[in-house]
Amino acid sequence: MKRGFASDNYAGIHPDVVTAIAAVNHDHEPAYGEDSVTAQLDDRVRHLFGPEALAFPVFNGTGANVVALQAMARSWEAVVCAQSAHVNADEGGAPEKVAGLKLWTVPTTDGKLTPALLDEHAWGFGDVHRAQPKLLTITQSTELGTLYTVAELADLVAHAKSLGMRVHLDGARISNAAVALDAPFRAFTSDIGVDMVSFGATKNGAMGAEAVIVLNPEIGDAVPYVRKSAMQLASKMRFISAQLVALLTDDLWRRNAAHANEMAQRLAGGVTSIEGVRVTQRVQANAVFAILPPAVTASLQERFRFYTWDPATGEVRWMCSWDTTTEDVDTFVAAIADEMAARGG
Amino acid sequence: MKRGFASDNYAGIHPDVVTAIAAVNHDHEPAYGEDSVTAQLDDRVRHLFGPEALAFPVFNGTGANVVALQAMARSWEAVVCAQSAHVNADEGGAPEKVAGLKLWTVPTTDGKLTPALLDEHAWGFGDVHRAQPKLLTITQSTELGTLYTVAELADLVAHAKSLGMRVHLDGARISNAAVALDAPFRAFTSDIGVDMVSFGATKNGAMGAEAVIVLNPEIGDAVPYVRKSAMQLASKMRFISAQLVALLTDDLWRRNAAHANEMAQRLAGGVTSIEGVRVTQRVQANAVFAILPPAVTASLQERFRFYTWDPATGEVRWMCSWDTTTEDVDTFVAAIADEMAARGG
Amino acid sequence: MKRGFASDNYAGIHPDVVTAIAAVNHDHEPAYGEDSVTAQLDDRVRHLFGPEALAFPVFNGTGANVVALQAMARSWEAVVCAQSAHVNADEGGAPEKVAGLKLWTVPTTDGKLTPALLDEHAWGFGDVHRAQPKLLTITQSTELGTLYTVAELADLVAHAKSLGMRVHLDGARISNAAVALDAPFRAFTSDIGVDMVSFGATKNGAMGAEAVIVLNPEIGDAVPYVRKSAMQLASKMRFISAQLVALLTDDLWRRNAAHANEMAQRLAGGVTSIEGVRVTQRVQANAVFAILPPAVTASLQERFRFYTWDPATGEVRWMCSWDTTTEDVDTFVAAIADEMAARGG
Amino acid sequence: MKRGFASDNYAGIHPDVVTAIAAVNHDHEPAYGEDSVTAQLDDRVRHLFGPEALAFPVFNGTGANVVALQAMARSWEAVVCAQSAHVNADEGGAPEKVAGLKLWTVPTTDGKLTPALLDEHAWGFGDVHRAQPKLLTITQSTELGTLYTVAELADLVAHAKSLGMRVHLDGARISNAAVALDAPFRAFTSDIGVDMVSFGATKNGAMGAEAVIVLNPEIGDAVPYVRKSAMQLASKMRFISAQLVALLTDDLWRRNAAHANEMAQRLAGGVTSIEGVRVTQRVQANAVFAILPPAVTASLQERFRFYTWDPATGEVRWMCSWDTTTEDVDTFVAAIADEMAARGG
Repeated sequence: MKRGFASDNYAGIHPDVVTAIAAVNHDHEPAYGEDSVTAQLDDRVRHLFGPEALAFPVFNGTGANVVALQAMARSWEAVVCAQSAHVNADEGGAPEKVAGLKLWTVPTTDGKLTPALLDEHAWGFGDVHRAQPKLLTITQSTELGTLYTVAELADLVAHAKSLGMRVHLDGARISNAAVALDAPFRAFTSDIGVDMVSFGATKNGAMGAEAVIVLNPEIGDAVPYVRKSAMQLASKMRFISAQLVALLTDDLWRRNAAHANEMAQRLAGGVTSIEGVRVTQRVQANAVFAILPPAVTASLQERFRFYTWDPATGEVRWMCSWDTTTEDVDTFVAAIADEMAARGG
Repeated sequence: MKRGFASDNYAGIHPDVVTAIAAVNHDHEPAYGEDSVTAQLDDRVRHLFGPEALAFPVFNGTGANVVALQAMARSWEAVVCAQSAHVNADEGGAPEKVAGLKLWTVPTTDGKLTPALLDEHAWGFGDVHRAQPKLLTITQSTELGTLYTVAELADLVAHAKSLGMRVHLDGARISNAAVALDAPFRAFTSDIGVDMVSFGATKNGAMGAEAVIVLNPEIGDAVPYVRKSAMQLASKMRFISAQLVALLTDDLWRRNAAHANEMAQRLAGGVTSIEGVRVTQRVQANAVFAILPPAVTASLQERFRFYTWDPATGEVRWMCSWDTTTEDVDTFVAAIADEMAARGG
Repeated sequence: MKRGFASDNYAGIHPDVVTAIAAVNHDHEPAYGEDSVTAQLDDRVRHLFGPEALAFPVFNGTGANVVALQAMARSWEAVVCAQSAHVNADEGGAPEKVAGLKLWTVPTTDGKLTPALLDEHAWGFGDVHRAQPKLLTITQSTELGTLYTVAELADLVAHAKSLGMRVHLDGARISNAAVALDAPFRAFTSDIGVDMVSFGATKNGAMGAEAVIVLNPEIGDAVPYVRKSAMQLASKMRFISAQLVALLTDDLWRRNAAHANEMAQRLAGGVTSIEGVRVTQRVQANAVFAILPPAVTASLQERFRFYTWDPATGEVRWMCSWDTTTEDVDTFVAAIADEMAARGG
Repeated sequence: MKRGFASDNYAGIHPDVVTAIAAVNHDHEPAYGEDSVTAQLDDRVRHLFGPEALAFPVFNGTGANVVALQAMARSWEAVVCAQSAHVNADEGGAPEKVAGLKLWTVPTTDGKLTPALLDEHAWGFGDVHRAQPKLLTITQSTELGTLYTVAELADLVAHAKSLGMRVHLDGARISNAAVALDAPFRAFTSDIGVDMVSFGATKNGAMGAEAVIVLNPEIGDAVPYVRKSAMQLASKMRFISAQLVALLTDDLWRRNAAHANEMAQRLAGGVTSIEGVRVTQRVQANAVFAILPPAVTASLQERFRFYTWDPATGEVRWMCSWDTTTEDVDTFVAAIADEMAARGG
């Protein structure tokens, strides 16, 4: 099959995760999370996020985001997010359609919110005509491959809290963020007041496993019910939990994320020296955004999979994953150089 | 771990399914169903359900049911179902909460609807005050382990169609039904006018895989969108599809279901001869319902897992699965006999 | 126009209500309830329901019911109600479709729930698979024209409270009930622990005005927001409030309801002596249910408007309203007698 | 009571509308729209909007907008609108919460969309990850008091239609628009391909009456059902319809709107000559937007009601209504001049 840089979802499963699934495939275990593997996951999560953290495995990232937000929201409330956020741009309207959540969206240049950008929508509290902006969702690392520093996130969360808002962190790529920040998960979640996290494992080498992690015990009682009514409760949950446990064992999550981030750096470094290619966002996690001549893009896409991000500007997105090889990167950089030489003028 | 008869979800994954997951775990594949494994699944499904059938893998049974029903419903419509149906009794309100579907529920003695029972709710067409009963959902085999004959189903579907209704079949245990009927899937779905099927694989030996199968091409265009907005679209879908393909290969689905059904017959046969135990439903698939003295139930539950179905009557439910052994059954029957002898008086 | 007994919604507006609308039609008043007329309504409602009662005018009865229930419910909760309840039978699925509320419905013979009937659905607390039955809605007087005694309601509410449930009373015909019980509103609402009331005025002589009345201050904070998001917030609210104030002034509500109830008694009394007509429900408010030969019904319906309630049995419903005259009743009774004589054999 | 320019909802009911309500208040009429007054309304609407137009009275503007949009949408679709649109900014999230509609919002400078602005969100057709932008809603006159020309609207609608979109026009102030354009309603609705209209009467002198008007017969069958399930179906509908009929009789709608528009022109003309006051939007209907020094605004608000639109810039909104008098305007202009002289430096 043709390889490429289309998505970190195009990669397969890390072999250790397959092994972990097979390893728990014996005997009967209670369904729906009452099993021994999910109990192990709880331990890992408490170790990483703090003693009050609770983990609720779900199927996918959209599910994690919507379950977390719905569990924190009353029926008339709304969510402030970056316009580029996955909940707004890529979830087929699930927040609105499953949970009735209105999104107040803020355009950003780099996918990152700031206290000032939050203020553009965090007003009108108490006015019934305005869907109440009581929730904030932040993505770390962002959809644009950028990263909040711990201090930036702490400021943003503190500002939201001062306004009476609850805070969710979409961590579809939280491992890439932790590696890039060289910080433990809790430094930019539990320790700074984030209430709930969507913990992503699928893009990090799982087959299909994410978890809603509740950090604020005052608002967590809804999650078990919402997970069920939102159709995100797995019957044979042990096999979802086993994937998460495998990644959280012996720092597999970290090794996979570090590798993906390194490949993105290698790719960015490689193309920076090619004249006519412009990297458009800071490369801080596992994504590289760049502008190429459309003819070059078209020609490259015959051999490598990747997406055009913005047809108007010719911007493309290249994602690196846990299984991207240095050969993948070097071959691709060479191909870009060749195409630029041939068609880039 | 303690074994038992609590649920066909307590079993693990059939080894061939694990092998199949591992076998497709190489290289990059497009996400969200554009992969080669899902293409194989389409072939299998067309082979089994007819040339117009389309398969849409989803995560779980609740997801399959709600996606199928929502895809067929307009916003003001309602669903007629048996009161015992999974969509009514066991899905945490997902049909109402995710899709706004009102359920018109009919009490039954054996989980089976009839044209006359359908008529109890299939009226008021055109009256805006009555949520329009335009959908019918049928479960085969039922939640009570019973089975519609092909003729019964055909009559019921024809009656619904004559009223202008669309018909969904909840096939969480469709394989057990096909084996018990000794009929191909299409004999009681495509051939009799069923519009959509929830095809269950998880209870049949998968890790977690179901599919919405569209049989009526006129109403299928909604499924891809609804699957996404209902958060049932897997990114690394090839691994869901691989499970379905594995079960649909070399009749693995049939072998697993036949075994589970046989174990239920063995269990029912065993307890029938124990005085004081009364089997309450016909044993036609992989479930046995029986009434025991509560003291016997309590004592047995210390050694074997199973659920009390109705505390008022003492009715219990025993589910057999693909991995239930003859030894499991025989040990359990002996234990029941012992307990009845000790406490049953 | 042809008069009849089809519905208490077929009547017009009591003249005093029209006068009241005209009387507040001068000058500017703030919209959305910040006006002086709505302030008056608050006073009346506190006087009638207790010092903590809060009134929120809405447009119609379905709106009142759904706003009240949604304001009390968390997203995964469900409502127990009689199968005959308006929320279940006559609201086009609004509770499910607007608020995602699952209804657990209980068949009754007379529209009245009891603690034992409540227990049929009030179980499974804490089980995520079961939409949590945390709300109870009761209709007083019922859809079948019957009445709970104060003691019956108090028992039912106390039982629900002992299960941790919240209680709503659908008072679309609350004035008819208060008159029939010869009790103040609060005797069967505030005083016995009801949390929220839908206070009906439209059938009592208003043009179109109902109110959600919050009795439990702990759960009322949601109503203003839910009323808006459920599209039940009137801009020129003073004219809705004026209708409610008019009915709550000088006991107009009582006079209208007493008259309607008397007309129902007169009608029931009149038909009781006609051989072949059987009154099927106790006549306790403003409705009479009776069984007639279908040919008689058909012939009567050419001259008088009324509905067949159950085509299977020939049961019909006759509603009396504030504007039903003794002549209306006597003419109708005579017509029934004539038709029975002519066709009733 | 203090008068002012806060909202066209602060005005009362035009006397002819009160008279019309009283005039139909006799005898029994069938509920829910089967009455003779609603039949009259149908005639008026067909006369004004074309022979295929159908009118469905509802309670309020939010109700009209959401019923119209939901009736046109499939469950996975989304709506493109101006960021300033009432459906986005002022409806408490009703489109999302009642109908699950995602809104794709476009910032504008003057409340008006263009084909180019529509293109910013009208893409991704067929991509399940993107809530499908299949609906467009346009407000005429806009929330900012501006007006589309007939040609501008025709271009925009034609562009949307070329993309396969359905088009709704929010006509909360459609009468002000028709007068300002000096064009019949149908010139900028039926004749240019608009599918549904929210026809506003409340701000035009009604007590509380709006109508969903279906122009495209292919998509209108949903409206009766959606109106009911969205809780916008009035029982004593004749009194809603009577208001609409009254305004559509003898051009009362036109006289009321013309007057309000003239008052806005008079106000804008008056303040234009006051140094330091800047009118910020074109005054084309019945609204004036202006920037004043905050101290002047604060002082004026002690005597006159009006809202600050944007605290950051000091922009205020002044609405004129059918009952605004020349004295109201002149007194207000004089007061502004005085305050500017006193505090404007």
